[in-house]
Amino acid sequence: MGSICFGIDIGGTSVKLGLFTQEGELLDNWEIPTRKEDKGSFILQDVAASVEGKIKEKSLNKEDIVGIGIGVPGPVTEDGTVVQCVNLGWGTFNVANEMKALTGLETKVGNDANVAALGEMWQGGGKGYKNLIMVTLGTGVGGGVILDGNILTGSNGAAGEIGHITVSYDETESCNCTKHGCLEQFASATGIVKEAKRILEKSEEASVLRNVPALSAKAIFDAAKEGDALALRSVDQLGRYLGIALSHVSAVVDPQAFVIGGGVSKAGDMLTEVIRKHYEQNVMLALKGKEFKLALLGNDAGIYGSAKLILGK
Amino acid sequence: MGSICFGIDIGGTSVKLGLFTQEGELLDNWEIPTRKEDKGSFILQDVAASVEGKIKEKSLNKEDIVGIGIGVPGPVTEDGTVVQCVNLGWGTFNVANEMKALTGLETKVGNDANVAALGEMWQGGGKGYKNLIMVTLGTGVGGGVILDGNILTGSNGAAGEIGHITVSYDETESCNCTKHGCLEQFASATGIVKEAKRILEKSEEASVLRNVPALSAKAIFDAAKEGDALALRSVDQLGRYLGIALSHVSAVVDPQAFVIGGGVSKAGDMLTEVIRKHYEQNVMLALKGKEFKLALLGNDAGIYGSAKLILGK
Repeated sequence: MGSICFGIDIGGTSVKLGLFTQEGELLDNWEIPTRKEDKGSFILQDVAASVEGKIKEKSLNKEDIVGIGIGVPGPVTEDGTVVQCVNLGWGTFNVANEMKALTGLETKVGNDANVAALGEMWQGGGKGYKNLIMVTLGTGVGGGVILDGNILTGSNGAAGEIGHITVSYDETESCNCTKHGCLEQFASATGIVKEAKRILEKSEEASVLRNVPALSAKAIFDAAKEGDALALRSVDQLGRYLGIALSHVSAVVDPQAFVIGGGVSKAGDMLTEVIRKHYEQNVMLALKGKEFKLALLGNDAGIYGSAKLILGK
Repeated sequence: MGSICFGIDIGGTSVKLGLFTQEGELLDNWEIPTRKEDKGSFILQDVAASVEGKIKEKSLNKEDIVGIGIGVPGPVTEDGTVVQCVNLGWGTFNVANEMKALTGLETKVGNDANVAALGEMWQGGGKGYKNLIMVTLGTGVGGGVILDGNILTGSNGAAGEIGHITVSYDETESCNCTKHGCLEQFASATGIVKEAKRILEKSEEASVLRNVPALSAKAIFDAAKEGDALALRSVDQLGRYLGIALSHVSAVVDPQAFVIGGGVSKAGDMLTEVIRKHYEQNVMLALKGKEFKLALLGNDAGIYGSAKLILGK
């Protein structure tokens, strides 16, 4: 039985790699570019070569290595089959089997948002909880469901698609998923800005946001922290949509905690508090009082979670 | 290792009991009244006496009995502790331990809606699926989440509280849970009637429903099947609220199938089809195409599910 492992997070532009102990210590981490040409057919070869290179560099013995965990940006079934990874050019194939064939190392594969949730449970904002929901507020809105310490994959690898819970039935613009009114349309970094602009347009009120040349989620939170009324309204609306969506999640799985991550979560306690406020207004008594935590691992959540995926409980 | 078991469903007015084989054959079933006096302190004693009586009557050997499964109308944690069973007068105590002390038989306890879901998975409308959601449309709206063949209990025993997902933000009346706009307010037997009356009041259109002395969910579905426009509108609204709530559920756990039970489900395919229509309009591509099944076990779902709970996977 080995005592170290690789945690790997394959993204659209780069692959993050980490070497971990079983206890969760990150011994080394590095990145390689994601070669997307030829339908992404070089990606796993590049990753395998990089792993082999690190094994040589560190004079590691393969018997000391538990295996490789990999997070990928798309749906993955329990056995490690990706259904389609549009961002990588991939079709449908078993990533775990291919990586094992390339390296001889046991491999487990998960969806990147799910794996990030597992990472935060292991060594991040969700440490100490075995049943938690992670919501990642970034370019999109990702979600991960951890039950009894394991990722919930779902029958088609689509569990935890919290960003595509419908939260508004009046929205006329389409989400990237083609539906209308998804949480992602209001709570992603771009969604927050779009909604703030709508609020500014509908009002005549003065706001420091009117003078910000390139509006951003950060600018909106900064203005809200200074007491700007329209910025506060934007933040409250964001909290309402997130609070409502998480109230739905809670009624289904009754978790212990929610962990909020992604670039937007740099807003800090103001974000978790406004989500909590609206969550509490929208859940029944038995579901009140959940913990709302900020993610702690940032862009490393994926490598931590991938490592935990192969290490197991 | 035994080969038979007891499946017991404790309700507010009567306790249903069943004797089952491991294969799911119901060998015998009977009922006793639920004695609620003295904070329900006689209930488990009565159940234990009834079980002991059946063991004698059938000349059973306790070594042949796997144990007792019990469904109760309230939240239950993994270890068999009920948090509060208002309908039975119970406070907080470990039902599994007490029943084991009374009978010497291994006991497992689950929430009645969760246990019914397990029963439908085992021998009912959900047979063949390991990941399913059951929704029970009766006096209230109950829900049960089955993942990988097991009941999902949740951290406070409140997983699967689908009836209290908020589906309307305009509702001014309170739900029994004190929130506003819960699914239960629109999709319970009484909720369906209340909403149909609202639709009738708002319209001048002719409808056979105007001549029904005591409106019921059945009368509404019967009229809809005859093409009555306002009845059809009532059914469509019901389908919309259920379809929306189940779209939320799907985005969290990505099940294989939904099983619809309770008295309202006697409406049959018209009900499942209208739910499916609105479900499909409200989920992202990866979550489309789920199965919508009718429950098959009726009031026996609880005893089947309790039996399966003690038998295990």
